[in-house]
Order: sequence, then structure tokens, then C-alpha cells
Amino acid sequence: MRKIGIIGLGHVGATVAYTLFTHGIADELVLIDKNDDKVTAEYNDLRDALAVNNYYVQIKMQDWDALKDADVIVTAFGDVSETVKATDRFAEFKSNAKKAKKVGHKIKKSGFKGVLLNISDPCDAITAILQKSSDLKKNRVFGTGTYLGTARMQRIIGEKLGQNPVNVEGFVLGENGSTQFVAWSTVRVNNKIALQLFNEDDQKKISDKPNENSFAVAKGKGYTCYAIATCAVRLIQAVFSDARLYASVSAYDPEYKTYIGYPAIIGSDGIEQLVELKLTEDEHNKLTASANKIKKHLKELKK
Amino acid sequence: MRKIGIIGLGHVGATVAYTLFTHGIADELVLIDKNDDKVTAEYNDLRDALAVNNYYVQIKMQDWDALKDADVIVTAFGDVSETVKATDRFAEFKSNAKKAKKVGHKIKKSGFKGVLLNISDPCDAITAILQKSSDLKKNRVFGTGTYLGTARMQRIIGEKLGQNPVNVEGFVLGENGSTQFVAWSTVRVNNKIALQLFNEDDQKKISDKPNENSFAVAKGKGYTCYAIATCAVRLIQAVFSDARLYASVSAYDPEYKTYIGYPAIIGSDGIEQLVELKLTEDEHNKLTASANKIKKHLKELKK
Amino acid sequence: MRKIGIIGLGHVGATVAYTLFTHGIADELVLIDKNDDKVTAEYNDLRDALAVNNYYVQIKMQDWDALKDADVIVTAFGDVSETVKATDRFAEFKSNAKKAKKVGHKIKKSGFKGVLLNISDPCDAITAILQKSSDLKKNRVFGTGTYLGTARMQRIIGEKLGQNPVNVEGFVLGENGSTQFVAWSTVRVNNKIALQLFNEDDQKKISDKPNENSFAVAKGKGYTCYAIATCAVRLIQAVFSDARLYASVSAYDPEYKTYIGYPAIIGSDGIEQLVELKLTEDEHNKLTASANKIKKHLKELKK
Amino acid sequence: MRKIGIIGLGHVGATVAYTLFTHGIADELVLIDKNDDKVTAEYNDLRDALAVNNYYVQIKMQDWDALKDADVIVTAFGDVSETVKATDRFAEFKSNAKKAKKVGHKIKKSGFKGVLLNISDPCDAITAILQKSSDLKKNRVFGTGTYLGTARMQRIIGEKLGQNPVNVEGFVLGENGSTQFVAWSTVRVNNKIALQLFNEDDQKKISDKPNENSFAVAKGKGYTCYAIATCAVRLIQAVFSDARLYASVSAYDPEYKTYIGYPAIIGSDGIEQLVELKLTEDEHNKLTASANKIKKHLKELKK
Repeated sequence: MRKIGIIGLGHVGATVAYTLFTHGIADELVLIDKNDDKVTAEYNDLRDALAVNNYYVQIKMQDWDALKDADVIVTAFGDVSETVKATDRFAEFKSNAKKAKKVGHKIKKSGFKGVLLNISDPCDAITAILQKSSDLKKNRVFGTGTYLGTARMQRIIGEKLGQNPVNVEGFVLGENGSTQFVAWSTVRVNNKIALQLFNEDDQKKISDKPNENSFAVAKGKGYTCYAIATCAVRLIQAVFSDARLYASVSAYDPEYKTYIGYPAIIGSDGIEQLVELKLTEDEHNKLTASANKIKKHLKELKK
Repeated sequence: MRKIGIIGLGHVGATVAYTLFTHGIADELVLIDKNDDKVTAEYNDLRDALAVNNYYVQIKMQDWDALKDADVIVTAFGDVSETVKATDRFAEFKSNAKKAKKVGHKIKKSGFKGVLLNISDPCDAITAILQKSSDLKKNRVFGTGTYLGTARMQRIIGEKLGQNPVNVEGFVLGENGSTQFVAWSTVRVNNKIALQLFNEDDQKKISDKPNENSFAVAKGKGYTCYAIATCAVRLIQAVFSDARLYASVSAYDPEYKTYIGYPAIIGSDGIEQLVELKLTEDEHNKLTASANKIKKHLKELKK
Repeated sequence: MRKIGIIGLGHVGATVAYTLFTHGIADELVLIDKNDDKVTAEYNDLRDALAVNNYYVQIKMQDWDALKDADVIVTAFGDVSETVKATDRFAEFKSNAKKAKKVGHKIKKSGFKGVLLNISDPCDAITAILQKSSDLKKNRVFGTGTYLGTARMQRIIGEKLGQNPVNVEGFVLGENGSTQFVAWSTVRVNNKIALQLFNEDDQKKISDKPNENSFAVAKGKGYTCYAIATCAVRLIQAVFSDARLYASVSAYDPEYKTYIGYPAIIGSDGIEQLVELKLTEDEHNKLTASANKIKKHLKELKK
Repeated sequence: MRKIGIIGLGHVGATVAYTLFTHGIADELVLIDKNDDKVTAEYNDLRDALAVNNYYVQIKMQDWDALKDADVIVTAFGDVSETVKATDRFAEFKSNAKKAKKVGHKIKKSGFKGVLLNISDPCDAITAILQKSSDLKKNRVFGTGTYLGTARMQRIIGEKLGQNPVNVEGFVLGENGSTQFVAWSTVRVNNKIALQLFNEDDQKKISDKPNENSFAVAKGKGYTCYAIATCAVRLIQAVFSDARLYASVSAYDPEYKTYIGYPAIIGSDGIEQLVELKLTEDEHNKLTASANKIKKHLKELKK
């Protein structure tokens, strides 16, 4: 049976729960939030749908012990609005770091042995803290990282060329934040090399567009939820069926000694392997800078 | 191809769009909201998911002309918070009535010939106004009405007896608001008559519970969205496949001369027929009172 | 993770596998058949679809040990064509009884601790043998029994009245074979008692129709697979999510001391409970006769 | 509403119908076969599942007029067993060519204006005949062609490297038959060029494997159905939502003046465009030879 814990029932966590619920992906959901009223609301809103849903799903709430035999835990805590985060994703670092420590300890105490997928921002640094505090193996903890950024890049290039975003491959790499970048050397559209389709000016515009779109979402509704939830659900499914999905997520990279957005193979053990890319020197430098930023923030936290 | 317009991109309308999108139910969505920023946000949040969604869906926004050949339009406008609505669903009547007239006229102008499903509250009265202003046939306009209330009753009785809500049949009837009631004479659980399973005291408690749960949802998140969206999507699907689904929705009842929550058969023409129930006298009186309340409010509006 | 073993890869078993595969219901499938070529064919036909399927599913074949930690096993062995079975479902009893003993022993040896769902015919008797030889608890073994017969009755009454089969409730009871019968006292359509909708003549015709349709299927393609596979998959899903689904299946009935088609609640433990019906005397007699037939055949086998 | 006609209810056509039915992809299915018993069997087997299916689907049979407003027609006629076809796919050319002419004329007569997807073998030649006889525009008629062959190649390379077939990109091109070939210059696995992963010997083995697997399926069950049906359903979905799916299918290629397996963009108009590949000289020669074979057979037919 597929059992999934969701910690943090804000817009993102709740949308993840709803998606798993309406698609029959979860057999059992355990919903946890520091705010009893919030989790009770989501619990009730989901259970009210049971009579008209195509699937039955068991739902529990505020039960840390129930995480013991969960297969996957998704963490999606954090209070800072997307509008603020759009300019500085580290704005909520200190408060989320504290939460991550607490949450990780409680996960450890529950006896959880599965795979932890983190969405909370700043994603790479928080994933690192959750891994440490939960004492789970490094490969069993990973973050959505640049998976959404990549989807956004695919969409934007797809729109530009009148193509389905699925026809666009390649990756956004690095920190899930201001230093992330489109690794243009990896981008291809319908088997054509993107660098030959776009000049530098176009590339620049496309590189900026994901953030612009993200800001448009933030401006209009104060948060994002649908795209990120769909990303998270896809990763959860890959863990369940050992799909060996190839995706750019926040994984621990021994070379850079940090969690960072990089292509990996996702399976039942979480990160099954990293997939090395042949980056250009410029891309390599950007990735290094991105890693350094994440590590610097983590270091400052310890002071 | 399945084309669906959604007018009003608040939490409910947006969740309907997301559900249709992630399940591949819609081939094309037309999103419309008076607030450009809001609709732009939802448009972007959905399109950012395209690269990881199992289905491709075309999405347009703010395009009334595109409704011309839509199969279904869902209306879900309204600004009043669920917390306020929990005590008085007519709190937003005046403002929503105005919107309904405007929206209906624009729908008419678009040349739309399909089925209109209204979610906006107070559902029965707003559905009536939308029918008039859109000039669509009465059976081609209906509201979610007591479909959600019925699902909530099924859930509560299911929980009480440790059963799947789907095993509970029967209906909540009347206005989608304070005068709605559980038609106990229709309720059966696993083929057993509910009246024999619950004494009057229990019935009273169960009858009150949906509103309590609804209030718990409102308190915790300020609105409801998942259960109502799932209800709406099920009704939309019934229209597409001419499913002749038996459900309690807000349909025009010639006997009571108003839209009101009553069991109907939903198909490609919207309301295919009403299904007469043998209600008790008490239930009949409640239904009459409920109808009168709706009509009274509609009458007052005209003054 | 959801792991399902399928023993017997004829049309039915293969269609069950395909349905679980294309809907992403299974994370892992274990396919077993006495015919290596057959199972190899299905294994390849499914795996060839992986690149275009919306879900990844792990597939193993001919691996009894892999059943150890399966959640559900489906048995669907048997060679006799539907055309023959249509006139006498016990035609394949002896050969299938032998297989059931062997299969049950192997299941026991594998260390399987989950729920066993049997489709092989004659369903009730074979389910009984599988329960004994597998040494699983009685409630953890059940058969599809009259679940399909019930679906056929719902469809036929639905067609007769121009309604969705889902709007028809009630049960076909007894042996999954010639002595099964429509328990008319349980049948309702859109809350109306069916006995009041159909006279005795109509009832007779409707009662005969499922067999006629079944025969039409057998005549045209030599076997049935889609409806029975859909039934099986729904029951499997109920086990996974502990759905407490109310359905007429072949469950062990202590009153009749045999497996027989009777309404039960299906959950993670298989048969969670039987749901007592208030049958008419005539229906009661039919059920007793049906039970006696099953027991007689089982007794004769031992001689 | 989504309306789909299926002409030819053999294993493939029936599996396509079942897949559309259980996934709720079709709102209405029109089933047509020269064998009344066969189509009646499938009609009944599907409708018997309605009460337990998550979706309602309207089903008609043997009604050519009902194709008039269908969106998509799938042709899947043909009697020759896969075992025979495995060695010579043109074995059924003459008989299927006759059928294709008849079917095309009837489609024309029905007034059908949608998109026609052909599965019948030899796929490229039959697609050509269907296009002519139906008088539909060339882009509105296409065949599954090498879409399945490509999926098989993805699977085999995926297995070889322990990767999800989805991680393998590239194409099998040419005739859907003995002259089709892996266009190695297009193959990439997790962004790595396949030519660098496999030596010539490996390439040869991999190139032969799809046919071996296909033969294993044919040997074990006499036909293939699941992978090809899943392929067809994916293409149908691309037409409905104008997905602009990038896939190698049998499309009319003005350069080669024939239908042939080549990458195209699939949308609501069928083939939206061909996507030019930079093939090696060897690949180019193979494609030319493949095209010549198809044209030769078509020419001989006219004699």
C-alpha cells in the first residue's frame, strides 16, 4: 500500500495532498501542520470529497507516529509569501531552518525509513538540514530543486517555438533561487540543438522569463501551487514504482559537497545516481557559484 | 474535443481548472476573471506544469469570444469569504447577482450553446439569474446546489458507521444554504434504511455536522475548494459523456417555480429530468420553505 | 509500494495486468503462467508499452518467490473456452481444482501474507480450494463471484430504463454459474423499488438477459475479458486503500459453510464483513440451493 | 465531446476501445467490424463493465452514419496472425488493401471530417490507400508506423542500461516492417549520444532485438495488442488536445512521395509538420530503400 506523509499544509502541501487524492496515487495520507485549524480544514475538505471521488483514500492528521511505515514524506512548510520569495528566496531561511531541524528530528523519532522529498525553500539548504536532522541516508533525501525551473524553461521555449514543452529537453541547474541558470548546452528541441535556434539575446530573454512568470504568479495569487505540486507528485510516483526518472532535482552532489539542482535518476531509493553532464566552462562556473552560495548560507546559519 | 470555460478564478474556479488539467478531462480551457492579475497567475501556474503533466491541455485567458464553441461553462465568481458565508450565504447575494447578470449577458453575446454549471453562491438564486441573463434553456443551466451537501452527509454517516461514503445513498435537498436539510427518508446505508439505524437525536447531530465541518474548513483556510471542485468536475464529466448521472443538484423545478436542490438526471443536455421522491410531509414542508426563501430573495432583488 | 501477483495469463489475467499497468495502479507486477511462451508474450507486450505509458511499472515473470511481499495475488487460470462455460461452468472444475491445489501450495510456500482474489471458474468452489491449499485466513481469500453478474444486471436494467447502470443498485447472488439469481428484493433504480417498475414477466426476461449477453460475448470472441478485468481491478483497489467497498463477491459465508456470492465489505483485510440482507423466502431458497450445488461439487471432488 | 470510431474489432481495435473506455478518454465510441458477432461481443463486454467503470462512455456499433461527426477514426482491420506477419508484414497486403478501399469509401460517404489514424498492416501502404479512398487531406490521415518500433527500441536500450525507456530518445524510421531501422544518429540516453555508448556489435544486436521481442509476443499469444494500443491511444490524445506531440509515425512525406515512418508533430489536424532530421548517409540510404519498397508494393497493387 502506498502511504505518504505531508508535513506543512500550506497551498503547496495541500495541493500535493489533493492531487494524490483525486488521482488515487496514495492509499493513505498523513497530514501534519503546526496549525491545527489549517490541517483540520484540509482534512475535512478532502474527506468531504470522498463520496464523489473515483478513489478511496485513508486520511490521518497530526499523527507523527503514523509516519513510521510511510513510504514517502513530503515537506512543504514555510510562511513567507511568494512575492517576497520572488526577490529573495533566502528571506525565509532562518525560520525554515529552525523548522527543518525540528521536523527532521520528529521524522527520525517516528522511525521513518522511506524517502523524503523536500519542497520548502530555500530548497537546497533546507533539504540539507532535513537530511542531517532526520539522519536518513543522503540519497534518500532530495528536494524538488530546479525540477520546476526546468519545467518552466521547457514551457517558455515550447511557447516560443509553438511546440509542446515535453518536446523540449535540457535542464535548469543550480540553487533553486536567484543563481539558478539554464544550462543551454543541454537544451534541445525536437532533437535540434537550442543554441543554434536562439541567439545570445534570445537566450538571455528566455533565461529571464521563468522568473518573470513566477513573479506574475506571485503577483496574481501570492503563491504558486499547481506546477510545483505536479512536479512533486511526479517525483513521488517515480519513487513508488522505482521509475528511474531522469530529472533535475536537488540532490547531494559529492563533488560540490552540497545539495544542489543537478540531473539525477530517481527511483525507490530516492536518488539512484547523478548523471554527469558535459557543461561548458561558463556553466561550470555558474554551478560552482551556485553551490558556494548554498554552502555559505548553511555555514552562516551555524554561527 | 472537450472545451470548457471557467468564469471566476478564485480558489474554487482555479481548483476546477487544475483538476480538469491534471486529469486530462479538458482539451481546452478558457479562463476568465475580472482580475487580470489573478487569471494571469493561474494561467501561468497551470502552463508551468505542462512539461510534467500527463496530458497536454490548451489554455486561453480573458477571451469571451472563445466561449462560442465551448461545451461547458463553469461559473465560480464571488468574493465573500467562506467564514462569512458559513453564517449567511446570502451575504454576497447582491454583489453576485450583479455579476451574474453581467456574466450571463456576456455568455449570451459569445454565442455559447452548451451547458452552464454554476457554483457561485447563493447557488440556487444565482443559477436562476444566470439562466435568465444568458437566455439559455432552463435545463441547460444548473448549479452544484446540494451535491456537495449530499457528499458531506454521505461522509459523515459513513464515518459514523465505519463505511465508505459511497455506500451511503440519499440526498440533502433544498437551498444550498441554511434551509437545506437531510431528506432522511431517502437515506440508506448498504441497503439498510438509515431511519432505523439512527434515532432522532443522532439524526439531529448528523444533520448539523455538515455545517460544522464546513465551518471548520472555513476557519482553517478561509474557503473551501477541494470537495466542491471534485463535485463540479464529476458533473462536467456527466455532461460530456451523457452519463445520466443521478445526483442532487440545483435544477429548475417547475413545481416550485425556482432553481432548488433536488435529484436530477445529468446528461449532455444538462438536466435531463427531475426524479420525483416520495418525501415525508415534514420533508415536503422543509423543501417548500427552502423554495420560498430562494424566491423571496430573488423577488427582493428586483425592487 | 503496490505489488500484485497475477497467476494465469489468459485473456482475463492479461487484461487485469494491462489495466493495472496503464492506470498506474500497480508499482510492481509479478506474472506467472504454466506456459512460458504465453507469459513471455504478455511480459514483452506490456514492457514494449513502457516508453509511451503514463506510468512506470516494474514487471517480473515466473518468479514465485517474488510473491512473498506482494500485497494482492489474482488467480485467473483455466483453459476451457467461455462458449463451453456458458452452458456449464463446472466443465472445467476438475482440471481447475487440480491447478488450484498446486497454485495454493506454491503461494503458501512463497510466504505470501496478503489478500488473494480468485477469478478462476467455477469461482466459488475454486476460491474454497485456494483458501485451503494456501492456508490463508478465510477472509483474506475471496472471489469475484457475482460481482460481474451484478454489473450485468445493473447494465441491463439501466438500458431498459435509459439510465446509467450506476443508478441501479441491488445484487445478483449465489453461485457464479447457472444457479445465480437476481435478488429482486434488493434492486432499486434511482431510489425506486425495482419490483414496482417491472412485472414478473419483465423480471424473468431481465433475469435471463445477463446469461444471454454473456453468451453473445462468448460467441463473438470465445471469452470475456474487459468487464471481468474491470471488476477485478476495482476489488484490488478496494483492498489497497481499505475502501470498505460494498459489493457482492464470493466470500466465505459461515451460515452456508461455503464460499458463495453475497454482499460483503471489501477492505485491506479482504472480506471485512458480510452484510446481511433481508431476502424473500424464494430468494433464500435459491441461495440455499446455490450453496448446496457448490458444496456438492466440492464433496464429489474429494471422492 | 470526444467521439471516436474504431473500424476493425480484432485484438488491437478492441484493446484500443477498452483503453479509451477505462480511462474516460472517449465520450462516445462507434465500433464497426465486418463480423457482427465479434463487434457484438466487444460491445457487450465493454457495456457490462459500465457499472464498475470510473467513467460513463456511450457506445454504438455497426453505425457508419455515426462517424459523420466523429473527431477521430482508428482503423485496425486485418486477419493475418502476427506470427505470419513477423516474417512478412506484406503477407496481408492484398486482402487489407481491398478492405482499405472499401473502408475509405464508406468513411467518405459518412461525411467524416476528422482525423484518421491507421494501425492496419502493412501500415504505410494501407495508410496511403485509406487516404486516397477516404478523400481526406493527406495530413489528416496518418498511421502508427514506427511509433511502436521506436517504443520497443527505447525499451531495449533502457533495459540494457538499467534506465527508464522514457529516458531514451531517438527514432526507428522507415517502413513499419522488415526495412525499418534504428536511426542511431538520433538516439540519446540521458543526454548521452548512444553511438558512444554502444559499439557496432551492440548496435546490431539492439537493432535486431525489437523484431525478436515482437516474435516472442507473436509466438506466445499469436498477436500483439497492449503496446500498439497504448501507442494508438497516445496519438489519439495528441489529436484531441492539439498536443503537438513529437513522434515517429507513418506520415506522408512529399520528399519520398509516400507515407513512411518519420518524425512528425501530431496535433488537432493530424500531422502538423514533419521534423527534418540530419541523418547519416547510411541512414538516408536505408530510408530511401524503405520508401522504395512501400511504393513498389503500392504500384504492383494497381496492376
